[in-house]
This record gives sequence, structure tokens and C-alpha cells, in this order.
Amino acid sequence: MPEASSSETGARLAALRAELARRGLDGFVVPRADEHQGEYVAPASERLAWLTGFTGSAGAAVVLAERAAVFADGRYTLQVRDQVDAACFAVQHLVEEPPETWIEANLGAEGKLGYDPWLHSERQTVRLRKAAEAAGAELVAVEDNPIDALWSERPPPPSAPIAAHPLEYAGRASADKRADLAKGLTEKGAVAAALTLPDSIAWLLNVRGGAVPRTPLPLSFALLRADATLDWFVAPEKLTPGLAVHLGNGVIARAPDELGPALDALGAAGERVLVDPETAPAWVFARLRAAGAEVLEGSDPCRLPKARKNTVELDGARAAHKRDGLALTRFLAWLDREAPARARSDPLGEVEAAERLRAFREQSDWFRDLSFDTISGAGANGAIVHYRAREASQGHLKLGELFLLDSGAQYPDGTTDVTRTLAIGEPSAEMRDRFTRVLKGHIALAAVRFPRGTTGSQLDVLARVHLWRAGLDYDHGTGHGVGSYLSVHEGPQRISKVPNRTPLEPGMIVSNEPGYYKAGAYGIRIENLVAVIESEVEAEDGRAMLAFETLTLAPIDLNLVEPGLLSPEETAWLDAYHARVRDAHKGALDEDAAQWLERATRPLGG
Amino acid sequence: MPEASSSETGARLAALRAELARRGLDGFVVPRADEHQGEYVAPASERLAWLTGFTGSAGAAVVLAERAAVFADGRYTLQVRDQVDAACFAVQHLVEEPPETWIEANLGAEGKLGYDPWLHSERQTVRLRKAAEAAGAELVAVEDNPIDALWSERPPPPSAPIAAHPLEYAGRASADKRADLAKGLTEKGAVAAALTLPDSIAWLLNVRGGAVPRTPLPLSFALLRADATLDWFVAPEKLTPGLAVHLGNGVIARAPDELGPALDALGAAGERVLVDPETAPAWVFARLRAAGAEVLEGSDPCRLPKARKNTVELDGARAAHKRDGLALTRFLAWLDREAPARARSDPLGEVEAAERLRAFREQSDWFRDLSFDTISGAGANGAIVHYRAREASQGHLKLGELFLLDSGAQYPDGTTDVTRTLAIGEPSAEMRDRFTRVLKGHIALAAVRFPRGTTGSQLDVLARVHLWRAGLDYDHGTGHGVGSYLSVHEGPQRISKVPNRTPLEPGMIVSNEPGYYKAGAYGIRIENLVAVIESEVEAEDGRAMLAFETLTLAPIDLNLVEPGLLSPEETAWLDAYHARVRDAHKGALDEDAAQWLERATRPLGG
Repeated sequence: MPEASSSETGARLAALRAELARRGLDGFVVPRADEHQGEYVAPASERLAWLTGFTGSAGAAVVLAERAAVFADGRYTLQVRDQVDAACFAVQHLVEEPPETWIEANLGAEGKLGYDPWLHSERQTVRLRKAAEAAGAELVAVEDNPIDALWSERPPPPSAPIAAHPLEYAGRASADKRADLAKGLTEKGAVAAALTLPDSIAWLLNVRGGAVPRTPLPLSFALLRADATLDWFVAPEKLTPGLAVHLGNGVIARAPDELGPALDALGAAGERVLVDPETAPAWVFARLRAAGAEVLEGSDPCRLPKARKNTVELDGARAAHKRDGLALTRFLAWLDREAPARARSDPLGEVEAAERLRAFREQSDWFRDLSFDTISGAGANGAIVHYRAREASQGHLKLGELFLLDSGAQYPDGTTDVTRTLAIGEPSAEMRDRFTRVLKGHIALAAVRFPRGTTGSQLDVLARVHLWRAGLDYDHGTGHGVGSYLSVHEGPQRISKVPNRTPLEPGMIVSNEPGYYKAGAYGIRIENLVAVIESEVEAEDGRAMLAFETLTLAPIDLNLVEPGLLSPEETAWLDAYHARVRDAHKGALDEDAAQWLERATRPLGG
Repeated sequence: MPEASSSETGARLAALRAELARRGLDGFVVPRADEHQGEYVAPASERLAWLTGFTGSAGAAVVLAERAAVFADGRYTLQVRDQVDAACFAVQHLVEEPPETWIEANLGAEGKLGYDPWLHSERQTVRLRKAAEAAGAELVAVEDNPIDALWSERPPPPSAPIAAHPLEYAGRASADKRADLAKGLTEKGAVAAALTLPDSIAWLLNVRGGAVPRTPLPLSFALLRADATLDWFVAPEKLTPGLAVHLGNGVIARAPDELGPALDALGAAGERVLVDPETAPAWVFARLRAAGAEVLEGSDPCRLPKARKNTVELDGARAAHKRDGLALTRFLAWLDREAPARARSDPLGEVEAAERLRAFREQSDWFRDLSFDTISGAGANGAIVHYRAREASQGHLKLGELFLLDSGAQYPDGTTDVTRTLAIGEPSAEMRDRFTRVLKGHIALAAVRFPRGTTGSQLDVLARVHLWRAGLDYDHGTGHGVGSYLSVHEGPQRISKVPNRTPLEPGMIVSNEPGYYKAGAYGIRIENLVAVIESEVEAEDGRAMLAFETLTLAPIDLNLVEPGLLSPEETAWLDAYHARVRDAHKGALDEDAAQWLERATRPLGG
């Protein structure tokens, strides 16, 4: 989407204010979210970008009659100032100066603050209402979004087809998944659960779509009933031929506008309905309550079983990672030859590097899409955690610098996400020291054994202590959940400083990605995906201990490893990992690349 | 306190039921707590023990007309069955089958469940009320405790004198502490804070008492006002001569029964008063609300500044630990000679060992009391985490077994808490392996460096990973806060698997006590106290990193260390620690003990 020019921003803001005045509103909240609260939204839902020019993946704006503000988090500090016209919007920190605080300070008593109840979760709405009331004002739900009335060239809503995700990848039939969840509903005394997260519905129905970039999501709503049937509110023209057979009798496809009446019917019968206040739109809660339903607030019941991959999904993940690792290995062999040779005369650009990596991935028939926009950061750009290279302003790979490359792909049998940091030419001693500390953290996590019940928050420190020893740290989480041909970021488990109460369970896939960033100089991150498995060591009580199996298979740059800083155990881990990488790929490589891989994975131990 | 015989229990239970019937109550809750929610209570407050015979440090009973139950946690599983007459009381697990669940299932509709609002915090009361209402019944506050009406030989209330805690140990005058806290009250718009925790009041006023065993606490209440004055509700006969001068003009001593009217006066003026719902009795909340006050629920404002010891308190802690470590070292030298020599003919008993250790501590003028009842566990008794040796049933120190000794003392300049595990004769290879894994965890924690903002929950795993590797773990926290000539267990910081959001801050003292317990065989624990200090290494942003300074100074049994399992860094830590122990004590020991210490602290490294 093209960025809005400043004069456009001014005109749009003025038009929105006029529209709000016409409706008797004193302000309006514009979140980045769509109705499904996902990380990616369809172009037709990019209302925040249309209004403000800001295209980050999280944020919001609040527009009042006299003033307006845009809110973005630390990842977007620079980008938001580049993209947003400061004459129109004050720029605020999303976390430290959140919209609620700004609303409380600026809204003014007696005001009416509008919000679109489809675009805010119930929890967010409660916070907004509190802020409005603290200002002596009122929070008012709008019937239709005022921006949609003004957005003349609004892209059409997504129309991508929705197709079956076959059992050979899904591993468990939708009917069986629904029966499992239905049991849980019955135990809670609920007759239905309202599902609004696209990845939950995709997982539960074993379907995939293409409504948003980078993630094969269908956008729809569903009501799962305690008898294991499901009402699926989805545009019928999106359904591919044969999908009805795949779905079977238990799934009733209904037009999207039938959702409201279906909720009304539940309400009229006074039924108890499970809805997730963290993720479901406030609109669903309001409609159910108005109709007389008892809303049971609780987690989306798909989240945990979706996170626990079954054995078919795990085998798929292994195959996808082998394929993905081969493409990355070919790329690394190419890069190792190309980047230093061109460094002086015609240095390789970040964009070309990312495109070349994509081309290696596209050599496989199985490739469907990237799983996120590649982060290709040379030198100082590597220190910008959320960097995105653009043709005009990109950096180039120069001797003595580092190159950080974070990328992933969507395959029908699995989603990948991998970061490698490469030395172009000769790295400095400091770079080697920092890289090795990050590697020690990565290995500590990869090799840990832990009892059932352990959370990612408990393990996070293992990835940091070697950096802390030297007064260093990194300002992001250590690991996020990853879907199975679904979102590259999924919960509820997480490896992070932030307390998280979800234990790591067998089948969960998480990233292991400690890093180190020296602002203005270089960035380091080493990321593999790992699956939680039962360890071969039993706990004393006879139950299996858990461990991680590393899924990602690509060399870690030995030019950046300082062997003297590794313990014998750490060296053994690295050598064993590299032996796995070598065995996985050597037969599939041409002679040059095979020789390169042999060198790149040479053992450091005796 | 003598244990109640079964027939006594039956008679007391019947008398209580009659008393409840007389008052129109269908049940009554008997917590182990007194009005101050501390770990130790005065004999006059041991209502739970009087009624049920159970003397554990946590628990409760609920008495209904037809049935009654005692609740105790996992530490007391055996003890509670020993002490409680099963014909009178069902025994329930305090955490897994808490009183609330039992009340909900057993109380019966329309019932009236009595509780003493002085003995339950506001939060506990909310939970009790919810349970009673879920049963269709009502929770009713009693005016006076029905047990007190029946308890004929009830010990008198504590009368121990309250004396000044001089500035040379406290480090900061009460007036200055009160001024700091008063600022916080003003910021919150509160005119006063009701203080009910004895250690908070002792810290704030720089006074110490003797109302309960093992902790020099005065039992009293206080109202700290936003002008930094304080109303102290305390029996005037307890105040030692000169205390009024120490307290100064800002502290007004008032009779205990003036607390109610003082709360009423705040209410009459419609004032906002800060009270801690986790620790303050429900009585205080009810009285304030009835009088018209606005209750601001929030943490006791003394907790955090009390936890952050000042430099005088830290110097005191160092001196106390040196003194305490000398006593322990003398004991260990004695034990190493005595225990094996007597093992075959007249083995040393757990009680004699604990008494001998106490005698070594009493050689110092500074000794005031133990800081808790010594845990002296030989062989399998060492695996009982909360073991208490009794003359008649005690174990003895035998060759080839381990001896776990957890003890501490109160000195005017500091509180100590230390655990050593000793091999009597030759330990098995398994014992050495397990001990060394525990030691590796202890060292990892002792040597860690971490950024400001880090919590104990984040660090906990460092103490466990080496056990986890072998499928082992321990089922208790890794570290608790420790007071300064105050409670041996204090919050709010903690090192534990359980999420805790209080960052570790300079001056905080915590224990470092990983362990391993093999049921029926032996127990291992290695405990030192550590203080949070600024590390000599700076963080990249120029702020100090934090680290731990180990305070405890006593040898760790090298007979239990398997040197091949230690990394060079771990060996260096152990040798450096032992060098500190040797330097601290060698000049103060007689020739035999000095020679023993030399051997006991010999370096393992090259």
C-alpha cells in the first residue's frame, strides 16, 4: 500500500472530524486491528494506515476535535516519525503512554468517544470505557465505521478461496477435534463457543485460506456447539469445490450476516456461551448479552490443542524444516562466495540478498509463501530488531560487517522461521565474543531438560546469563509459538521475561532466538525452531522429563564462534548439530555447495 | 504446648459445637493465624492447636454441627495425622482441597458460618464469603471468639517488653522512615495507612519485642498519618523505660482499645485510608467502611523499604554472619570428630546435635535466640523438608548416612539462616553426584549477574537445571527474603518457580537454598544467605548490573563434592568461597579447629 502524503493525511483527518461531528461524536478510536485481532490484516482493513500513513503491525490512533495522536511501540519509533505527519498527529508510545492515558487527559468531560465494537476485544473495550469515564465522558459504539464512509478507493474485502487442509498434514480430523472441544464445553455447562480467531477456525476445520499476507488464513466466524457441530459464518463464494465433502455433515456453512441472528437465538434461549474476552470483538459480547445469553468468559478453546502439534504435524514440521534448511544452506553457500567477492566493487544489497533467498526457497514445489517479510539487515541495520529493507534506502554487505537475516516460509506441512547472522569478511574480536555469548544462550536452551509444568518464563534466563555476565542483554522475547502451516507467531506458550503461566507441553513448537544488538554497529540473532518432546531421561517419579528437539537445519557461522569461550558440552552440542545439518543436506547439494557445507560444519571438538 | 489427647479433643469439639448452637451459628472457621498474620503466633493465640491438637505453622479447621475438618499443607501430611483425632476431624490438604471447597460442599443452604474478623485478612474473608454464599449460606462475623469463652487454661497474652532497636543497627531513624512513607501516602491522596504487620511496625518504629517465639516482634497496631506522625496502639505496660524518648514527639502511644475509635474518626471525616487486603484483618476494613472512610486497598507501604536493607543493616548482617559462621564452623569441627567416633557405639542423636550447635552460638554475647526451630535430620529424616526432631523419636548419625542441619539465629545486628549437609563416614557415589548437582545450582545462583528489574522467579531455574538434567528436582522455593533482626521469612521478593513480580533490588537479603530429597533415604540442602549488591560490571547503558554477595561463612562439606562434575568456573567459585571462610575464622579458632578448617576448606583447583 502506498504511503499517504502529508496533505492527504490532513484532508482525511479533516473529513473524519466532519463525519464525527455529523454523528454527534467528539472523538473516535482507530486501532490497527481487524475483526479477528490477528498480526496481519487485509488491505481493506488497513484503516489506521489510510488515516495516518503509519503501516506498523501494531498501533492505534485517537482523533478528537482539536487534537489527534498516533500510538506505536518501541519497534516503530523511527518508522512512525517517518510516516506520520506531525502537524496532524502527536506521536505517543503505545506502551508507556497508551491511548487510555491520553484519552483520560484529553477527551474532556461530557464528550462522546466513538469506537467500532468489531475492532476491539472485550478487554480492550473495558479499558477504553474506563478511560472515557475517568474523563467524565462516555464511550459509544458506532453502528458502522465512519472511516469506511470516507475511504473512496478502499480495496475490496478479501476473496481468496478457502481450501481443505488435508488429513495427511493436519493429522486429526475436524470431527475428532470438535468432539474433544465439545466435551470441554459440556463440562463448563456451555452450549456453544463463539470462535473469532482465524487461526483457531482454520485449525478446527482443517481449512486454509489466503485473506491476509504471509499466513494462509480464512477470515470467518464460527459457533462450535456442545454437540460437536459447528455453524460456519463464511462467504459461500470462497469455498472451493469439494470443501463441503471435506467438512462433512457436522459443519453448516452459513452467510456471514447470519452470525447476529444466531447469537440472538442463543440469547433468547438463555443459553451459556463461551467467548474469549482477550480476542473476541466487543460486538459479540454486546449482542449476546442484549439477547439474554449468559456469557462465560474464557480462553478460546482451540488455542491450547492447536499449540500441541500431533505426531503428523510434527513429522510435517521436520520435513518442512529439512526442505527449508536446504534452501537456506544453498543460499549461505552462494552468499559466502558472492558477498566477499562483490564487497569492494558492487556490494550485495539487502533486498537482492532477501530475493535470492526467496528464489532458493521457490525451487521447491512445496513453497507457498514467505511466513513473514524477511528481515535482511546489513551492518547497523541488523541492530534494528524490526528492520525492513527498502530498495531506495537499503544497506549493503561490506567487509568486516555482520549480516542478520531472519526469514521463514509457509509449506503445506509446516511453517518455518530461522535467523542466521553471517560475518562478511573478517569479524572483530568483539563481534566474535558477542556472537559466542548469544550462541551459549541458544545452546543452553536447546539442550535443557525440564519437568512437566515448566513454563517458558522459567527457562528464559538460560538464554541470557552469558550476556548478563558481560553487562549485555537483548530487549525482546526469547521464543514465540509457531503454527503448523499457520501463523508464525502463535500462543499461548512463550519464552520470555514476562511471566507466562502456560506450561510447555509435548508437541508445542517455539523459537529459540536470543540476540544482541549494538545500536549503530551490528545485530546478532541465532534462531532455530524447536519442538517440545519427551526426553529419554525419566524423572524420579517415572514420568518423562521434557526436552527440545531442534527442527531448523542450517549451519551456524563458525567464523563468528570463539571456541575458547565454549565449554566441552557446548562444543559437543554445536558439533552434533552441525553433523545433523551435514547429514540432512549433503546428498542434495551440488559439488561446490557440498564442499562448502563440509567446511561450514567442521567439528570444533577434538 | 502439650498435645491434646483424643478424649480432650472430642470434649473440646463438643463444647465448641454447643457454644456455636447457643449463638445461633451452624459452623465456625478456626485459622492458625492471630491478628497479625505472622508465621509465629503467641501461645494465647494457638486456638487451632487447642481445638485440634495440630501444631503446624499453617492450617485451619472448619467445624460444622455434623462434621469437622482440619486442613494442612504437604509439609505436614504426616504430622497432622499423628496429632489430630480422626474420629473428630477429617484431614484435608490445605492447597488441593482448601477450606472454601469443603465449606461449599458441606455447609448446607441457609446455614450461618461464623468467623472471627480479627483472624482473617480481607482477601481471605472475601473467599470465605464466596464459599458460604455458593452453598446458599451466610458468612457471619463474631463479636468475640467462641473458643476464648471455652479455653479455661488459656495462656496469658504476651507481655514481653518492647525496647528500642538502636540507630547503630537500624541505620535510619524512624522519623526519616515515616517521612518517606508519608510522601507516598500524600501522593496516593490518603491521610493515613493502617499498619497491622508486626514486622512492619517494628521496622518503622525501630523497636523490637518478644511476643512470639524466634522473632523479636512486638504485637501492636498503628496508624501512620500523611504528616509523618504515627498513632501506636500498644499496651503501655510493655514499653521499656526510655522508649518514649527514642520514639520522639511524632509517635503517640495509645491504648489498644483506642484503635476502633481512631478508625471511626477517620471514617467520620470521610478520609481515604490505605490498608493491605492481603495482610490486614477484615475487622479493620469493616470498621473503616462502617464509619464512612474510603478504603484504598494497597500493599503495606513498609514491605519494600524494609526489604531493601540500608548500608548499616548490611554491615550488621555481615558481622552477624561472621559471628554465626564461626559458631557453625566450631560445631562442624566438633561434629567431624565426634560423629564418626561415636557412630558405632553411641551414635549422636539429632536433638543433641542441635543443642550442641545452639551452645556454640550461645558462646557469643550477641546471641539473642534461634531464628527458627532447628531442622536436624539424620538419614531419611533429612528428606522430610519440615522435619523436627523430638527426643523420643529422633534419628541418630550413622556411618554412610547424610546429616542435614538447617538452623539460624537472631542477633541485634542481623538474622541468620544456614543449611549444611554433612557426610557421616563415607558417602555413596550417588550421594556425591546429587550433592554436587545441588552445589552447581547453588553456585550458578551465587555467581549470577543480572540487570535491574530481574525477579527471583526469573533466576530460579539456574538452581535447578543440573538436577533436571538427571531427572531430579526439589519441591520447595529456592530462596526467601530475610529480615534484619526480624522475621527469617519476609517478602515481597522471592526466588521461586511461582511467578513473582518484585524485582530484586540492592540491599535485599535472600536465601540461596537448592536441595534434593530422596524419600526414605537422605536429604541434601545447601543454604547460604546472599545480599543483592551492585556488580562491578556495568551494563552497556552505564547502569550497574546487580549481583549477589554471599553473607554466610561456613565450610561446605568437600567429602560430598565430586570434583569431576564441576566446571573450572565452579571450582574457582568454591575455592574462593572457602578462602573467605578460612580467612574469616582461622584467627578465632583453637588449634584443632583451625587445622580442621584448613583441611575442610582446601582448594580443589590447581
